[in-house]
Amino acid sequence: MAPDELVARLQDAGAEVSLAELDAVIDGVNAAPTGHDPAAWFTLIGAELPTDLAAALEARRTARQAPVTAGDPAARLAALRARLAQVEVDGFLIPRADEFLGEYIAAQAERLFWLTGFNGSAGLAVITAESAAIFTDGRYTLQVRDQVDTTLYETHHITDSPATAWLKAHLPAGGRLGYDPWLHTRDGLARYDKALADVGATTVALTENPIAAVWADQPPPPLTPMVAHDLAFTGRTSADKRHDLAEQLAAAGHDAFVLTSPESIAWLLNVRGGDVPRTPLSQAFAVLHKSGAVDLYVDPRKVTAATGGHLGNEVSVAPRDQFGAGLDILAGRGAVVGVDAGDSPVWVWQRLVAAGATPVADSDPVVMPRACKNPIELAGMVAAHERDGLAICRFLAWLDRTSPGTVSEIDAAQKLADFRAEGAHFRDLSFDTISGTGPNGAIVHYRVSSETNRVLAAGDLYLVDSGGQYLDGTTDITRTIAIGPPGAVERDRFTRVLKGHIAIATAVFPTGTNGAQLDVLARAALWRVGIDYDHGTGHGVGAYLGVHEGPHRISKGEGAPALRAGMVVSNEPGYYKTGVFGIRIENLVTVVDHEIAGGERAMLAFETLTLAPIDRRLIDAALLTGEEIAWLDAYHARVWAAYGTALTGADRDWLAAATAPL
Amino acid sequence: MAPDELVARLQDAGAEVSLAELDAVIDGVNAAPTGHDPAAWFTLIGAELPTDLAAALEARRTARQAPVTAGDPAARLAALRARLAQVEVDGFLIPRADEFLGEYIAAQAERLFWLTGFNGSAGLAVITAESAAIFTDGRYTLQVRDQVDTTLYETHHITDSPATAWLKAHLPAGGRLGYDPWLHTRDGLARYDKALADVGATTVALTENPIAAVWADQPPPPLTPMVAHDLAFTGRTSADKRHDLAEQLAAAGHDAFVLTSPESIAWLLNVRGGDVPRTPLSQAFAVLHKSGAVDLYVDPRKVTAATGGHLGNEVSVAPRDQFGAGLDILAGRGAVVGVDAGDSPVWVWQRLVAAGATPVADSDPVVMPRACKNPIELAGMVAAHERDGLAICRFLAWLDRTSPGTVSEIDAAQKLADFRAEGAHFRDLSFDTISGTGPNGAIVHYRVSSETNRVLAAGDLYLVDSGGQYLDGTTDITRTIAIGPPGAVERDRFTRVLKGHIAIATAVFPTGTNGAQLDVLARAALWRVGIDYDHGTGHGVGAYLGVHEGPHRISKGEGAPALRAGMVVSNEPGYYKTGVFGIRIENLVTVVDHEIAGGERAMLAFETLTLAPIDRRLIDAALLTGEEIAWLDAYHARVWAAYGTALTGADRDWLAAATAPL
Repeated sequence: MAPDELVARLQDAGAEVSLAELDAVIDGVNAAPTGHDPAAWFTLIGAELPTDLAAALEARRTARQAPVTAGDPAARLAALRARLAQVEVDGFLIPRADEFLGEYIAAQAERLFWLTGFNGSAGLAVITAESAAIFTDGRYTLQVRDQVDTTLYETHHITDSPATAWLKAHLPAGGRLGYDPWLHTRDGLARYDKALADVGATTVALTENPIAAVWADQPPPPLTPMVAHDLAFTGRTSADKRHDLAEQLAAAGHDAFVLTSPESIAWLLNVRGGDVPRTPLSQAFAVLHKSGAVDLYVDPRKVTAATGGHLGNEVSVAPRDQFGAGLDILAGRGAVVGVDAGDSPVWVWQRLVAAGATPVADSDPVVMPRACKNPIELAGMVAAHERDGLAICRFLAWLDRTSPGTVSEIDAAQKLADFRAEGAHFRDLSFDTISGTGPNGAIVHYRVSSETNRVLAAGDLYLVDSGGQYLDGTTDITRTIAIGPPGAVERDRFTRVLKGHIAIATAVFPTGTNGAQLDVLARAALWRVGIDYDHGTGHGVGAYLGVHEGPHRISKGEGAPALRAGMVVSNEPGYYKTGVFGIRIENLVTVVDHEIAGGERAMLAFETLTLAPIDRRLIDAALLTGEEIAWLDAYHARVWAAYGTALTGADRDWLAAATAPL
Repeated sequence: MAPDELVARLQDAGAEVSLAELDAVIDGVNAAPTGHDPAAWFTLIGAELPTDLAAALEARRTARQAPVTAGDPAARLAALRARLAQVEVDGFLIPRADEFLGEYIAAQAERLFWLTGFNGSAGLAVITAESAAIFTDGRYTLQVRDQVDTTLYETHHITDSPATAWLKAHLPAGGRLGYDPWLHTRDGLARYDKALADVGATTVALTENPIAAVWADQPPPPLTPMVAHDLAFTGRTSADKRHDLAEQLAAAGHDAFVLTSPESIAWLLNVRGGDVPRTPLSQAFAVLHKSGAVDLYVDPRKVTAATGGHLGNEVSVAPRDQFGAGLDILAGRGAVVGVDAGDSPVWVWQRLVAAGATPVADSDPVVMPRACKNPIELAGMVAAHERDGLAICRFLAWLDRTSPGTVSEIDAAQKLADFRAEGAHFRDLSFDTISGTGPNGAIVHYRVSSETNRVLAAGDLYLVDSGGQYLDGTTDITRTIAIGPPGAVERDRFTRVLKGHIAIATAVFPTGTNGAQLDVLARAALWRVGIDYDHGTGHGVGAYLGVHEGPHRISKGEGAPALRAGMVVSNEPGYYKTGVFGIRIENLVTVVDHEIAGGERAMLAFETLTLAPIDRRLIDAALLTGEEIAWLDAYHARVWAAYGTALTGADRDWLAAATAPL
């Protein structure tokens, strides 16, 4: 929400406040030593805020918060080492993680960045008294060397040269490796325990993260309002969801299950929040009982009266710091408590064991019903994609009217965000837009900055991967656009990526099939000429939740569960010519039951949710089969049917040409 | 080898013996209470026998051996229960397995069949004092109920209703479940231990299999000669293989590795034998030392002087019953001993532990070099397939000249075996021929008997899956033949199976890809109309070794290793209409490096080894793409080029028509 609109909306709501006055309130909130209080917003207008307005205020507060900055890394490292000596450990693990172990983390949890200056989305630093190293995956091999002082830190590839091996070489015999039990899973910790046993060292859970003692201006935890998510969007009441799952718990012999995934809690309780960027989560922990009741551990300041009413009598709210005591009570009752040992902090496991319980490792029971969306959720996803696709069409039409050399990657991303923001129910982008032209398009997880910003130039391929968070659904789309006439190699590669995209879009498969089995369909046309892409073909997507949300996926890796009707997954094959160009074609698809006359097996197929033209100028029709051309023409006919009347003038003319049959 | 030929060959070798005299010697050998002695053969002709003659003699001996028969199952079960009471266990496991844990077992190890009457290739009986059950997979659901007295045994599906769950319900608290530690792996046993822990019961290793005490006429172990396999076929000396692997062992930190797979020992030592049907194995155990030396534990009567000379000084031969003492010595030396805990008898693991060693679970190091065949082995496979394909062509031409209604499944299988036996280096079939017409073709693992034998009738699809063991290679081929004009449904299904076959045959894929990733290619054309097949798409094949030989495969299941150049694997999609017809099209293919101009990745592809026409009358060309038709025509051109000159007359005319372009 733009500042002017925010102020206008506040004034409409009864708060006579200027932008300067608003920012003064915000800065006061940020400066409060005890953490910020959303009640400050309510005092502005003397009533509960509409959720979008509360979110906009919180977004402005976060934006004005003193950012986490890279300071003097040597001083910070020295301070941390001194602290480690005080707490009597020989080493310490600093993963890029918070206690919810998800993809997006709040500023408070940016410990790895604060310490080392590395701001990638995944990484781990390991510190001992004499040595230090940082471990990242292949995406960040170059970035980590740019951002980190390599006189302080060795840099390693996290799988080729794992931290466990490094620790075995650097910890003394009998050494103690400290870790924050909120930031590691039981299964993850077990790998360290196993490796350290070889050299006679041990892991030691620390009750306070040593970084807290040395990070003077560590931000407070986020404190955005937890708001009810309307039944019109969720399709089922929380009570119905809770009682269904309670029956499953009882059948599995659990008395209770500990939920530590904010996505699971959001889905189960039909609530959303704004605690992390780009994903409408409210950070909390919960225990689901086999009665259907839930103990919700969350800062009570986040739970407004309206939200309390929504949660109802079966959900009891307690402060976060009572979570442990709640687990102790379960243990004391002799309850059989389920824990997702691969996805929850080991702290939970250890607390239950310490209290005398024998926790049972099992999968978070919310994951599967959350992934298999109900008809209302699916209708919301369809509606959100219809609005999102209109924004994309307007953006592509606008881009088509600009001249090569006049628009930058940042310009384009901003323009697209502006079009999106005009859609009903729009709340946020679903991730930072990847807006890369020419060689920047070949960087799979490119994040444009003022240093890397390029102008879209004639002959470029421009790759834009973006999405929106709408109250009724989450979107994620990639289009690759020719800026000026494309070359023959670009057209060949684009057409092969398209063949893979169509092969997934048209796949028909029996129940029980998982995404690993289908992945080859997306790659076969590339493999035939000796090329490939080094990322998965598809990730699960939530409904006004995480844009990356499992458990299902389409990728080479093993272990993914079977695809089931109602799951939403991306279909995004690509090809990347390092230093030259990148191509990706991404739509979201829904898994649907697929009846076949004369068929013998229960079959599934995909239905494409995303609606926007695929650049015809980049297609070499000679490489397509008749069936592939028919798919593309039918898809473009759907796009035209969806937006042909909504658009006018030049936009409409552009769409007519962009969706014409091949 | 036919009896007449056997006698003629013996006479050529200097043994003046009639068939009646020969059979008298054979019956005497079989009757010997201490087990048969191959020296009896040598006394026939006063010298070492040519290997093919020794094998033919052994085959005739096995054929004249008193077969393991189904007796009174109630009496046998009662006797076993009495024995279990004597050895003080509450239950006992009877898997269809011998101590080599492979697919084919010797008559001595047919304990499950002897006890229950069930003769399928996989199954497990579990006996307690009061109850008994037999567990089989879906292939044998019907057969087990036919063969087993269901008043004595419950019948269960081994995965839907596993033995572990049955045991939890049927063993008393504190119960002791006996098992033969030679017949279970460590990993397999662990599943029983885990399940029994839930009910306070335990597993107990028995020093003697209780069936030995109650099976009065249990056959002795097989005792066929172990013979050298010529360097002309193996391509590498055993010394070279052993020293390569020894280096790997040393690098992995092992002092020695225990080998319990006869296939691995055969490959490593360049020896073959005839201890089990259809696979040229010599049953033995071995320890490979990091020096490259091998301790071979085998009945010394099997090792002739010539074989001893072949094995050389680095291979020391000791009787099987000294295997345990050998492990004790290793343990006493503090050696680091590797064991394949998923593929070796748990007896090995337990013996090492009892002797104070800490065995290390690792994969049998022979498996991968055995699977990735060297150029000489591959040339042998090509040559064997050329001869094998000629036999197939002659058989198909013969079949084409017969009239519908005149040839039975047994007739056809015998005719095919006769043609095969005429090929150079032919030693045996590689498995019992699957010869099924009409509804019998729909039984995936059909084994024709006089009870089930059908005549190939007009309108049938006839499915014949067969293979040969040649000194230079092992073959496996399935063809499905229209007997008279086929129906439209049969042609549609056949063509879809063919599309899957071609998709595998033409697949191109990067190194690191495994068979699970490619499997969908074989099924997509079937899935599109809602049908599928319930078996894997391909299994590994040995070089004059097992026709089913891992570790690689093409199938839905996870865990298969990446395909590598030199691996041979079958390509055998199918479709089965229960009670009506079955279709399978199987060729063997080799994984080869595949250079692509302009490619960026190291790629692999398949080269088809098998040469025989695919029935053109069953192909609906309208369902094929141009590329698929081109593949088929090129394949048939290869077949014509291979055999067009070798065949004459009507056979040649038939081949010309059968390989004409579509």
